[in-house]
Amino acid sequence: MLLSLAYDGRRFCGFAPQRSQRTIAGELLGALREMDPGISSVRGGSRTDSGVHARDQRVAFDPSRDFPLSAWTKGAAKQLPEEISIMGARYVDRGFSPRHEALAKTYRYVLSTSRARDPFEVGRSWRVPELADDAALEIARNEAAAALGTHDFAAFRSARDPRAVTVRTLSRVDVARSGGDGGHVHVEVRGDHFLYNMVRILVGTVVDVARGRSRPGAVARALASKDRRDAGITAPPDGLYLWRYELRGIDPEPQP
Amino acid sequence: MLLSLAYDGRRFCGFAPQRSQRTIAGELLGALREMDPGISSVRGGSRTDSGVHARDQRVAFDPSRDFPLSAWTKGAAKQLPEEISIMGARYVDRGFSPRHEALAKTYRYVLSTSRARDPFEVGRSWRVPELADDAALEIARNEAAAALGTHDFAAFRSARDPRAVTVRTLSRVDVARSGGDGGHVHVEVRGDHFLYNMVRILVGTVVDVARGRSRPGAVARALASKDRRDAGITAPPDGLYLWRYELRGIDPEPQP
Repeated sequence: MLLSLAYDGRRFCGFAPQRSQRTIAGELLGALREMDPGISSVRGGSRTDSGVHARDQRVAFDPSRDFPLSAWTKGAAKQLPEEISIMGARYVDRGFSPRHEALAKTYRYVLSTSRARDPFEVGRSWRVPELADDAALEIARNEAAAALGTHDFAAFRSARDPRAVTVRTLSRVDVARSGGDGGHVHVEVRGDHFLYNMVRILVGTVVDVARGRSRPGAVARALASKDRRDAGITAPPDGLYLWRYELRGIDPEPQP
Repeated sequence: MLLSLAYDGRRFCGFAPQRSQRTIAGELLGALREMDPGISSVRGGSRTDSGVHARDQRVAFDPSRDFPLSAWTKGAAKQLPEEISIMGARYVDRGFSPRHEALAKTYRYVLSTSRARDPFEVGRSWRVPELADDAALEIARNEAAAALGTHDFAAFRSARDPRAVTVRTLSRVDVARSGGDGGHVHVEVRGDHFLYNMVRILVGTVVDVARGRSRPGAVARALASKDRRDAGITAPPDGLYLWRYELRGIDPEPQP
């Protein structure tokens, strides 16, 4: 069974299950096991960090009981905390892994340009008032564009990332004003696989250049040197959303 | 001193101070008294209910200390919980009362037309998927229009409202789709004074007609009969925002 989940990640210690911590996977597994104690684990499409949100996370599990699709989604929805919603579901083969079948993931980083702290934005965006200025936005756009394509992103990962291969391909990097109110900017990044904290470090670097804390060209310099010290800060988790998850030929049917 | 406050009201027991409950006025008074223990009370513009939000609540208080404006707002901001923000401030005469100087208050009720429960809307809108349909929206618009102007709103108040005079004037009643995403409808109501739960009962009545649970003409019938039983349900607090507060010739200067 494959689910599409949306969640407000603020009050969770990330997606991946952890003993004695409140996690997305932990809550989902608990909800599913209320209906079917034979389920032993869930397989997530992305290990979103603590505080990171999702509009379209994909999770697979292998049921041992034979319920109709709507019974699974409605039953699980009743058990889940209100910060987690099942947005879609469909049957897939046992053992199906969203990670292995990923065609592309799109992350969106939401920036607020409000000068005042807005209580309705707490935990949901990163406040960068400097980006209200069109010239600053243009700088951000140019800076981000340097990351488009295939590069060695070794400078754009946390020291905790153990992977040996650090070459990744970004098929889209957009910086644009969003929403009707004009008070938001988003950075949208589409790629096949990502390194740990890659989007947050990329956005942190872009924003630091746009607001004059780093010299223009920082993204290109860090890509060339592969040195984490040449990249900028790790942007806070608040504004980051796993926005869209593309699987090979598979899309969950909308629920309910 | 006059402040404009924005707050996410979800985790508060309303605006008005209550012993041993977390309230907006209680939190604000506590924050101000950290800076100036001589402040004994705050005077709010609207006693928003438990769970009701504000984009522009007005609150006055009488300082006993002589700080610059920015020291008051920055100092209080440091002490306030993140769900409450000071959006503006200005000096006013001692004893100034926002309620007495109110020219008009605008409340906005936010409805979500999403079919699925959206974790980012929890506590911030009322989900009414039926309003995705334009015909239903048109019914809501016609129904709400009956409340425009001066009427006896006796049917549109909670039994707890003690006031003898129940005639009120609504100078605007709008029902419209809002935002860029198309997933929201708002009901905006502007008036000078409101009865207790008046906006929530009006919106509840309008929505119940729009989704076919009451016969069209319910608002007009309840205005004529003055009987609470002819009006509809009390809409949940989640979608209600004190949206704009107009005072006679006074507007707080934006902060910071």
